[in-house]
Amino acid sequence: MTPVEEVLDALRCSGQLWEVAPGLVGLRGPALHLLQRIEERVAVLARGAAEEEWRVPPALSFDSLARSQYFASFPQWLTVASHLSADPAVLERVAAAEDPGLEVREAVTPPKVALAPAVCYHAYAGLSERTIDAGRRITLQSTCWRHEGERLCPLERGWAFTMREVVCVGAPEDVARFLEQGLTRIAGLAGELGLSIRLEEASDPFFAPTARGRALLQRVKGLKREVMVPLGGGRDLAVASLNDHEVHFGEAFHLRLPGGEPASSACVAFGLERLLLAVLVQHGLDAAAWPAALREEEGA
Amino acid sequence: MTPVEEVLDALRCSGQLWEVAPGLVGLRGPALHLLQRIEERVAVLARGAAEEEWRVPPALSFDSLARSQYFASFPQWLTVASHLSADPAVLERVAAAEDPGLEVREAVTPPKVALAPAVCYHAYAGLSERTIDAGRRITLQSTCWRHEGERLCPLERGWAFTMREVVCVGAPEDVARFLEQGLTRIAGLAGELGLSIRLEEASDPFFAPTARGRALLQRVKGLKREVMVPLGGGRDLAVASLNDHEVHFGEAFHLRLPGGEPASSACVAFGLERLLLAVLVQHGLDAAAWPAALREEEGA
Repeated sequence: MTPVEEVLDALRCSGQLWEVAPGLVGLRGPALHLLQRIEERVAVLARGAAEEEWRVPPALSFDSLARSQYFASFPQWLTVASHLSADPAVLERVAAAEDPGLEVREAVTPPKVALAPAVCYHAYAGLSERTIDAGRRITLQSTCWRHEGERLCPLERGWAFTMREVVCVGAPEDVARFLEQGLTRIAGLAGELGLSIRLEEASDPFFAPTARGRALLQRVKGLKREVMVPLGGGRDLAVASLNDHEVHFGEAFHLRLPGGEPASSACVAFGLERLLLAVLVQHGLDAAAWPAALREEEGA
Repeated sequence: MTPVEEVLDALRCSGQLWEVAPGLVGLRGPALHLLQRIEERVAVLARGAAEEEWRVPPALSFDSLARSQYFASFPQWLTVASHLSADPAVLERVAAAEDPGLEVREAVTPPKVALAPAVCYHAYAGLSERTIDAGRRITLQSTCWRHEGERLCPLERGWAFTMREVVCVGAPEDVARFLEQGLTRIAGLAGELGLSIRLEEASDPFFAPTARGRALLQRVKGLKREVMVPLGGGRDLAVASLNDHEVHFGEAFHLRLPGGEPASSACVAFGLERLLLAVLVQHGLDAAAWPAALREEEGA
């Protein structure tokens, strides 16, 4: 077994982790306490880096996704939410069905909203049509959904997972300073969590037929960097990323600087379940061996 | 305008509340800080009442819903999650579509999971096929989804909303004691939040064609009680409920007492956005007038 498989096996056997469908896991016991400590440390970092916090709606409009070019860029990951028909006759068939899951397929209405694949889209949508007088830094956390098919794996790659982000929207120099400071803060967090990290130039896995060299351009311009931690067995895991969007979202959501030009934006994103997995692989399942900042008495 | 309309109007105008679709709201600014304080007070209460906490998966299997008789009882509220087809040709049409929202309807796969309409189903499913040696008390919090059509209203009745629950599974006397203590704890919370509450016998709005007198039976046996707060204009809002399920879930999920008979269960559930609305209607939008437990300096 790889180190990751060993951790997952131990979590499953002790009842600390369970799955209701591929990529949809629950947590309880010491592993949940650890996740809560990590969540708190990341929240402290994020609130220190941002002036404001938003609690975003649990779904995103198709319009916001379309403006972000999400359908063209990552349609393979998309997950949508649908309610059932309000027609009593249709609902009666669901209510009386021997296999309600089958009958639900007939009763479902066309989807009108998406379960957000990243939390920062909510920020650009929430600021849309605005003039950004001074750089704004916003933190947001939410459950995000990306269906990665066969690649789904508990904690490492969830269908649903928890993402904390800090977003900066402003002039190019605001964004550059934000990303610079983000690196320092991430180094501090890695120290607290006892994780040895490595920064890597990266690119997004754009949907091939429409990618048109976007991934290459992203790499050449150094727009995406991932924070990698070793998982053992020569494998690495990205637990956070720093993303420079240049004016992509500024143009898409009409975010303008006082002079009228489109605002720049960037985000720093943390995957909380991945941080949990990294800490467990690095330090083991015995709480006594976890870094002080993550032990029960510390965060109380 | 009613007191609720006045609060919502002020939250919208000041940018503290926004909607991306009917019943899907975001919060920021003082209203979010207030919600976070309320969330924390409710979490303290819940953790005091439970021995364990679970973080549940963000969706529920159809099997768990079927076992709970949810499809027969409340099909009208159900919301499901679906990912798109993995077929590259289908995804290409989404990626290239002028109106991707329309093309998504063709690309969506049949739903396999539901967005949970209540968080406690996860607890019974997570304990299924278990013998309950001693009463177990578990607390869980999650986003829940109920599509109430025309009745959706920000904070009061969300398509998605945040529910904190404490669940008890055990012998009838465990459950009775749990509900008794729940009442005392709720009274304490109401004091902290400065809410005048009233307890009311209630029943669930079972889907009419399959209800078969279940609501009446619920009332006659006193199985459901709601914690009501005045909203002004003669209206009341249920901000919490106490629910005695007798052996319904014990039978459905094969939760057995040591003697072999089905376990009893009950839950106490809190609607966090409703508590926020109740506090805002009762105390107004000026933080200086909020109860001490909810002001910025208190929870820090």
